[in-house]
Amino acid sequence: MILDIINKKRLGEELTYKELDTFFNGYLEGTIPDYQMSSLLMAICINGMSDEEIFALTKIFIDSGDVLEFAGIDGIKVDKHSTGGIGDKTTLVIAPIVASLGIPVVKMSGRGLGYTGGTIDKLESIPGYRIDLSDDEIMNQIKDINVVITGQTACLVPMDKVIYALRDVTATVSSIPLIASSIMSKKIAGGADKIIIDIKVGNGALLQTREEADKLSELMIKIGKVYDREVRTIISDMDAPLGYSIGNSLEVLEAIDVLEGKERDNPFVDLCIELASHMVSMGKNISLEEAKKLVIGSIEDGSAYQKFLELVKHQNGNIQKIKVSENTVTVKAKSSGILKKINALELGKLSLALGAGKEKITDKIDYTVGIKLSKLIGDSVKKGDVLATIYYNKKKPDVSYDKIFVIQ
Amino acid sequence: MILDIINKKRLGEELTYKELDTFFNGYLEGTIPDYQMSSLLMAICINGMSDEEIFALTKIFIDSGDVLEFAGIDGIKVDKHSTGGIGDKTTLVIAPIVASLGIPVVKMSGRGLGYTGGTIDKLESIPGYRIDLSDDEIMNQIKDINVVITGQTACLVPMDKVIYALRDVTATVSSIPLIASSIMSKKIAGGADKIIIDIKVGNGALLQTREEADKLSELMIKIGKVYDREVRTIISDMDAPLGYSIGNSLEVLEAIDVLEGKERDNPFVDLCIELASHMVSMGKNISLEEAKKLVIGSIEDGSAYQKFLELVKHQNGNIQKIKVSENTVTVKAKSSGILKKINALELGKLSLALGAGKEKITDKIDYTVGIKLSKLIGDSVKKGDVLATIYYNKKKPDVSYDKIFVIQ
Repeated sequence: MILDIINKKRLGEELTYKELDTFFNGYLEGTIPDYQMSSLLMAICINGMSDEEIFALTKIFIDSGDVLEFAGIDGIKVDKHSTGGIGDKTTLVIAPIVASLGIPVVKMSGRGLGYTGGTIDKLESIPGYRIDLSDDEIMNQIKDINVVITGQTACLVPMDKVIYALRDVTATVSSIPLIASSIMSKKIAGGADKIIIDIKVGNGALLQTREEADKLSELMIKIGKVYDREVRTIISDMDAPLGYSIGNSLEVLEAIDVLEGKERDNPFVDLCIELASHMVSMGKNISLEEAKKLVIGSIEDGSAYQKFLELVKHQNGNIQKIKVSENTVTVKAKSSGILKKINALELGKLSLALGAGKEKITDKIDYTVGIKLSKLIGDSVKKGDVLATIYYNKKKPDVSYDKIFVIQ
Repeated sequence: MILDIINKKRLGEELTYKELDTFFNGYLEGTIPDYQMSSLLMAICINGMSDEEIFALTKIFIDSGDVLEFAGIDGIKVDKHSTGGIGDKTTLVIAPIVASLGIPVVKMSGRGLGYTGGTIDKLESIPGYRIDLSDDEIMNQIKDINVVITGQTACLVPMDKVIYALRDVTATVSSIPLIASSIMSKKIAGGADKIIIDIKVGNGALLQTREEADKLSELMIKIGKVYDREVRTIISDMDAPLGYSIGNSLEVLEAIDVLEGKERDNPFVDLCIELASHMVSMGKNISLEEAKKLVIGSIEDGSAYQKFLELVKHQNGNIQKIKVSENTVTVKAKSSGILKKINALELGKLSLALGAGKEKITDKIDYTVGIKLSKLIGDSVKKGDVLATIYYNKKKPDVSYDKIFVIQ
């Protein structure tokens, strides 16, 4: 029976709800071993899944755990998801903006396994910040200040946790159907009414081509329809890193700069405004243009930054105590010209080597290390200008300049 | 690195010798877990392998263990392999025929995991028959009587043992490149100079289509060329079972009937003669027609049967003591007409249910059970005629008549 299911998918045939349910729940319960699941996952990766299979799998994922209701929260619950990229600290900027405009934001974020930490790892670089709020604490904090960013509870889509861990070590992460059901099951089980998804494309992202991103977008919107959730997507570039900073403490500090209005007019700030505007537009049922005015206003009048300070304070963090390493080395331009490329993937690898990310679940993140760029793509540079400062601890890093920066 | 290798094959790219070597030997040494190997095997199954990759994999398989030389044996060493089918007892018939014609036959056979036992399981149904001869015993027996059929030593292609065990439980058996390297590595490591391979096609076989069989044939001949071994192939039908008997003791008894000349002029006997003729033709460097005359002669003059008796005696077996179960039930024709179909796959499943085969490595085979057909395809039958006798032990079998026999 189990082998028949794998064989069907090997031959590119469609699996029934019952077959998927038997297999995936068998795996979750431990009756189907890793090696059979990884064989099926690879067959899915290569041969794909029909829409019906993807809807079935999403349902199986959702049903594997609790579905949060947050019935006590007034208003439309809006959530945001990013498929992940190098230097992606958008949640830290967006959540306070949206909350400051009266829309409740309950953000349950994950840890990172890869080049950089996840949102939760970044927040943990703020000394004292609690990421383990109980349901009651979440509800109380929402009533008090309208925003929470905390860790995912174990009961939310437990299937995704075990399947993702296996995909991660079997080269089966890059499957559009598996990505779609993983993301959408978590968003739906998390209780969001409306969802904006930032799909990253480029060398530093899971998806490498615009075609794959379009397919993923279409699929997530379809899944949303099945569950009566409005889903919007944007597709954004991940050939270059997001903003100036990569690394946990450094990224929190950059998010603060953006919220304080000190950093503006670059692609990262534009992305934050775009995503926040979608959330506000969906949460208030207003046009994107109207929402955008409100978003920019909340940064300019300081209310977004105030909301961030309230958030950190409520969750016990102290931004005065954020530390970055005192050991630094600078990377200087080898020639003059225009900075044409900053390779996100290579910076991600460097970040991992510095200790800002995790290769194995048991690795410990060093919050104080990372890379701070001094120039962005399109800037003109002179030979000898500082392009980046690298914060390290363990040992002085060996930077592969030509792979990271291209000046022409 | 390991994930990069899986990813390449997931995308259908070609792996280098070094990548395959790292991965497969890492698995054999236990540093690469089952779930990563099964993921790669599924990617190979679906995306295939280039000739270069297949040659590399075959070499890696061969190099994983000892290569037998049998340098002391005079003459051209000829071997035969079958991709396996229901009721396939050809080795028991062919080996004595070829040996009786002066060609040395060292046959190292495997056990079966599936519907029926392998050649070694069949021989073990002869009480006393030893399947664990040492290298010295093999050499001495060849000098004495020119024929040995014994079990495979653990040192012969150990890679194949672990990979096959994993393929068997991950639905990755039906891969032409994996089948080709598995078979050819064993034949080459086993010291054969020339090899005839019987590729089975049909519902009772691993391969379902003539196209797959042609591809496998072409591939094995190519691998043979790389190692300077003459490889011939025949492609034979496995929609119907081979001969009259299925089950271990019953198949040995049928092989004896053929060697004694009591059973003749049916597709199974024809296949034995064809395969033996190829071996004799290759072993003596004579034409297939000349070889065929010698083969038929060795049956008719009793020398093949005498050789079989010598073989069994030398390996301690006693054919007088072969037992079949006393519990039988007959299957009778439900209508009159011509027997159009005998479904090999369904008979295989029945054989497994009776206990003649193994589902798990730890199962124990019951040598005394099986099925003996009274009619073959093309025979005319009358309603009520016995079509088959089923020998059972555990419990009276439930025969799904319409799935097995079609009379028109």
